[in-house]
Amino acid sequence: MPWEKSFDVDSAVDKATEAFWKKGFEATSLADLLKATGLTKGSFYNAFGSKKQLFTLSLLKYEREQRRDVMARLESLEDPIGAISQLFDSLIEQSLADQEKKGCFLVNTALDMPNLDSDIGDAVKKGLRDTESFFARQVRLGIEKGVISDRVDPEVCANSLLTLLVGLRVLARGVFNKESLSRIKVQALDLLR
Amino acid sequence: MPWEKSFDVDSAVDKATEAFWKKGFEATSLADLLKATGLTKGSFYNAFGSKKQLFTLSLLKYEREQRRDVMARLESLEDPIGAISQLFDSLIEQSLADQEKKGCFLVNTALDMPNLDSDIGDAVKKGLRDTESFFARQVRLGIEKGVISDRVDPEVCANSLLTLLVGLRVLARGVFNKESLSRIKVQALDLLR
Repeated sequence: MPWEKSFDVDSAVDKATEAFWKKGFEATSLADLLKATGLTKGSFYNAFGSKKQLFTLSLLKYEREQRRDVMARLESLEDPIGAISQLFDSLIEQSLADQEKKGCFLVNTALDMPNLDSDIGDAVKKGLRDTESFFARQVRLGIEKGVISDRVDPEVCANSLLTLLVGLRVLARGVFNKESLSRIKVQALDLLR
Repeated sequence: MPWEKSFDVDSAVDKATEAFWKKGFEATSLADLLKATGLTKGSFYNAFGSKKQLFTLSLLKYEREQRRDVMARLESLEDPIGAISQLFDSLIEQSLADQEKKGCFLVNTALDMPNLDSDIGDAVKKGLRDTESFFARQVRLGIEKGVISDRVDPEVCANSLLTLLVGLRVLARGVFNKESLSRIKVQALDLLR
């Protein structure tokens, strides 16, 4: 970033992320973004080029900080059932704690994929496919360690764990209560038996 | 409907539904709706009152024609595994056949719930909870008939089948291919064993 910029780009991206996360790409107006970041139109376009470029920055930063870092920490546990269980627990907790029920920025964007540019779509696809690979690695490790049944197919199971996780993130935005969300976790762990 | 209206209200709702379904409530502008329905601003407001009222009409019509009718037909099969299997098959087929990848109008709206009025939210919640009840009835019937294991908890299972279905509808909008979508169905049926 050039030294002339007198504002903190990173924090402006975080503020824009909040706006995009809540309402999605299309429904977030330039006015919303200027209000969120406190920037003038001139500095906004100077710094970010376009709404689309800022959205991509937001999504990649979220992807890196919210998803990748969490998975890396869980992976390091070397406790596959614990890692999967903790992931579901933390998403349920996060969903219940969030007064605004923003859900998951990545999942929200996945639902909007047909309306978005393909490079945004590619970032979403990669994030979700990476999550699926995380699940597959945990299941394989669990089978190796003898804590997950060897009748479980790691690919089919990982695919369903991702699907449950995506469904959970949608249903947590207003349809499911705490009890229903917890049942998803029970079922997720049951897939490993 | 008052006889003065010279256009077909039902068909106008269908055309508006297409627009809302593709882009969601917020991102669909009045201009989009006028273009889709071919109405003037005057007749639009005369007929529907507001964008929100039209959205509610669209959602309820979709709910009735796309969801409730399909479930009633499946329910009448009295073949619980067949009914659940056919529901997943038909959603996968529909998702793959749809060039625009619109997904499910109800699920798309569920994701947007925190941004919508509570009466729209209530309609969404009811539609999804009804789907869950459909699954629970099928599971109970299957246990009664001895085709579904009695170790399966109908409530937990129905909850997960709905979550898989919602996840499927999101992932079918661009992340999952045919093979990945089919795996969700394999897993769904596996929950019944």
